[in-house]
Amino acid sequence: MKDVGDLIYIYDTTLRDGTQAEGISLTVEDKLKITSKIDELGVHYIEGGWPGSNPKDLEYFKRVKELPLKQAKISAFSSTRRAGCRVEEDTNIKALLEAETPVVAIFGKTWDYHVTMALKTTLQENINMIKDTVCYLKKHGREVIYDAEQFFDGFKANPDYALATLKAAAEAGADWIVLCDTNGGCLPEEIERIINRVQEEIKTPLGIHAHNDAELAVANSLAAVKCGARQVQGCINGFGERCGNANLCSVIPNLQLKMGLSTIGDLSLKRLTEVSRYVSEIANMNPMNNQPFVGASAFAHKAGIHVSAILKDPVTYEHINPELVGNRRRVLVSELAGASNILFKARELGLDLTKDSESTRRLSSEIKELEHKGYQFEGAEASLELLLQRSAGQKAEFFTLESLKILVEKRPANGNGEELINSEAMIKLRVGDQVMHTAAEGDGPVNAVDNALRKALEGFYPSLKEMHLVDYKVRVLDGKDGTRAKVRVLIESADSEGTWSTVGLSENIIEASWQALTDSMNYFLLRRRNKKT
Amino acid sequence: MKDVGDLIYIYDTTLRDGTQAEGISLTVEDKLKITSKIDELGVHYIEGGWPGSNPKDLEYFKRVKELPLKQAKISAFSSTRRAGCRVEEDTNIKALLEAETPVVAIFGKTWDYHVTMALKTTLQENINMIKDTVCYLKKHGREVIYDAEQFFDGFKANPDYALATLKAAAEAGADWIVLCDTNGGCLPEEIERIINRVQEEIKTPLGIHAHNDAELAVANSLAAVKCGARQVQGCINGFGERCGNANLCSVIPNLQLKMGLSTIGDLSLKRLTEVSRYVSEIANMNPMNNQPFVGASAFAHKAGIHVSAILKDPVTYEHINPELVGNRRRVLVSELAGASNILFKARELGLDLTKDSESTRRLSSEIKELEHKGYQFEGAEASLELLLQRSAGQKAEFFTLESLKILVEKRPANGNGEELINSEAMIKLRVGDQVMHTAAEGDGPVNAVDNALRKALEGFYPSLKEMHLVDYKVRVLDGKDGTRAKVRVLIESADSEGTWSTVGLSENIIEASWQALTDSMNYFLLRRRNKKT
Repeated sequence: MKDVGDLIYIYDTTLRDGTQAEGISLTVEDKLKITSKIDELGVHYIEGGWPGSNPKDLEYFKRVKELPLKQAKISAFSSTRRAGCRVEEDTNIKALLEAETPVVAIFGKTWDYHVTMALKTTLQENINMIKDTVCYLKKHGREVIYDAEQFFDGFKANPDYALATLKAAAEAGADWIVLCDTNGGCLPEEIERIINRVQEEIKTPLGIHAHNDAELAVANSLAAVKCGARQVQGCINGFGERCGNANLCSVIPNLQLKMGLSTIGDLSLKRLTEVSRYVSEIANMNPMNNQPFVGASAFAHKAGIHVSAILKDPVTYEHINPELVGNRRRVLVSELAGASNILFKARELGLDLTKDSESTRRLSSEIKELEHKGYQFEGAEASLELLLQRSAGQKAEFFTLESLKILVEKRPANGNGEELINSEAMIKLRVGDQVMHTAAEGDGPVNAVDNALRKALEGFYPSLKEMHLVDYKVRVLDGKDGTRAKVRVLIESADSEGTWSTVGLSENIIEASWQALTDSMNYFLLRRRNKKT
Repeated sequence: MKDVGDLIYIYDTTLRDGTQAEGISLTVEDKLKITSKIDELGVHYIEGGWPGSNPKDLEYFKRVKELPLKQAKISAFSSTRRAGCRVEEDTNIKALLEAETPVVAIFGKTWDYHVTMALKTTLQENINMIKDTVCYLKKHGREVIYDAEQFFDGFKANPDYALATLKAAAEAGADWIVLCDTNGGCLPEEIERIINRVQEEIKTPLGIHAHNDAELAVANSLAAVKCGARQVQGCINGFGERCGNANLCSVIPNLQLKMGLSTIGDLSLKRLTEVSRYVSEIANMNPMNNQPFVGASAFAHKAGIHVSAILKDPVTYEHINPELVGNRRRVLVSELAGASNILFKARELGLDLTKDSESTRRLSSEIKELEHKGYQFEGAEASLELLLQRSAGQKAEFFTLESLKILVEKRPANGNGEELINSEAMIKLRVGDQVMHTAAEGDGPVNAVDNALRKALEGFYPSLKEMHLVDYKVRVLDGKDGTRAKVRVLIESADSEGTWSTVGLSENIIEASWQALTDSMNYFLLRRRNKKT
């Protein structure tokens, strides 16, 4: 019997079950990057893929062996041997061994209806498939995790047969038995009742693998641990097929901070927010702002009464200290917010505003008016800071536009000649009493404007070479207006010292991008000037 | 004592607590539209706002009286009277009565620390504030809901005082007492333990108001109902401050389908998906595809083995029948999917493809290649259909581009003259052996292209007047490349018979929009042609 000590083991399946999510597709390079990052978080197992299912996963397992990992053991996934096939001849199982991982996870059927309907085999042959596969993999020296697919639904349909499949895995020497709520429809009380029943029969350490189809995956995972499960499977950010797998970014802090159990340790927990955002970035999924614990809004306060209490003592409206999970407190400026929020922001910036001054009131109504049009300063704090600086009397314009023209030409490859698509921008601007008139090409019209603007300014402000764009987002505000809808552009820029975000808004994407681009440069130049003085 | 019968009452606070979410801001018009829609869902209470907090909410309460509502009672929200102020002179309470709603919800402090630290008053005065306010509002004939703010945290800190605040509300005649997990940090077992304790002392019907900061709001709401709570407060789509409120789109189907309780009824439940998407639309929030029950991916199958089982019997991988909540099953075509998924799609389209044919294999690898570049057919089924039709030998091009030029000019209001921003497109295209060369202006470059294209084509295809764009989305694929990043454009179009979606991809937003626009028109024209023949 495996001795699992006191720890709750975290089994990450972002790279396998997570990639079943709609809209997620990872290259081998992506998967390797995510492996290293998740390893830094201190999880105990990382499931890398299903070597039998596609060549991409095979390549991953070859290359992951060269990664220097701190803590995580890499696991490879597969089904049990096929019905009527000898285990050593099964191509999936061969590929599984060729992956050469210390750990393997194999899934088998629990639900009698699945066995006869989907597998089209007998109940006894299914038991043999489980037993043979676990035995064979143990003989090859692997740590074997047996995933009982649709265990809870199978148990509800036929408890005796469901338990018999687990016993087959246990007797064959599985190190772990993981109970899966594959369809994600169970309630926590069902999880508890069934796990308690399983523990009367099975002494192998148990794990839980929950899906989120009823928005209960986190609760179901915690309920299983409360009953005695010692391994939790899930994905970073709750990625996964349909509604996703149990979200490890919520499971881990709940286990550790709320239930007082040992998982990845306090130091690693502080990296949770960073890991969550990194994985979203690599998977090219928009991070969910309202994601518990790690989201950008998770500790963001908007209601005026909350903000004034938070200013007195954060514990009043925060369930944990955001630093414990590497997140931070934010105060949002919006029409719902009173003057408290603007003051909080001004104080952060070292600006001298008082609550009842005329300029605070004017600023507050200017912000409401702009937000009403569709600007959003919650995600564009540098644009907001420029607004505050200007209202405090700072000059924050480093150049003046005289004119801008953009020309885009498209000529398809119509038999004669190559396809052509070309974008160029002509710009004329003034810095002090000097005029610069120049032009540049780009990949698309906005990039051409960006290039022309830099070309025009770098003679005056050579330091602009040190800043660059790190993110460019376009949000169509009311798509119902079709191609004439308002668009909001958010730009994130960076230099060696940090990043900042700016916003622009217009029906014309070029105008909206222009506003965000020039705010970004003005912000950079303003900060440099203020540092010198 | 209020007799609440056997029903679980649903109290929707999307319009009040929901608007505290980052990025949400509703006009009065928006709030009225959402009120009508949520009423159609059959919820029992709709909290419209806080009349004392802003003029927008006052206007809402004036106008909502004229809405013909089917079922919901409108509720207005406020704090208790201020410390040291007579209740009839409190401006919040005056505004509350002026709202003239049948129901009012007032929140008071439970947590002793909040009373002394944030309210800066005595524990006894807080009790008096609760008692006076409830009494006064009952005297004015209102149904009174008392929201015990931060009840669970307050109970953990000082159970006797927390219970004393509830008793004050109960004795003053409150119809409901709602226990709030305002900071959203409780575990279900804490909710159960504390509610069981409350029920020993308080006989007034109880409600639960949970926040999602630990990703447990749905589980906590269900746990409270299991212990005896008869009202659940929450928001459509789980909107709300920080990580949101309990998501009614998950709470309601769980209560009704999983726990077998009466809430809004089976017929109304079938409208859940429609209501969820409508509210996202009006609130201008991207719907979450992976949202349980109502998300576009909630019943979307991607893994090949799941799809082949689903084709045999949907119960194998679905926890409920999607029709019960007005959602539908989808099969995704992606690189993870086998030929099963393409066949499922072709069958939907009435196309004749067989699993092992050469053309199915070619198609499958073409789709993989395009998705690898960044195209996404999961949300662009019309573009996928064009691809399938072309591979089945259908001609699906109704015109050929010869050349396209776009000119954008921007000249700011520099003292002399008005600000100018102008976009125009010149287009030359061929239909059969006829050439059309024309130009049009637009709000931004993409709109100019759209206008010029329609102008050039409508002489040849007058039916194009019957189609129009209903949504236009832009997604920057890898924002790290800044303004030269690839963008994916998704366009949704409609005619009197339905809607369809198309996709385009390029570093150049004009090229990406061109692809999606022309796919959209070709799809429309193809369908019209096929209908005639």
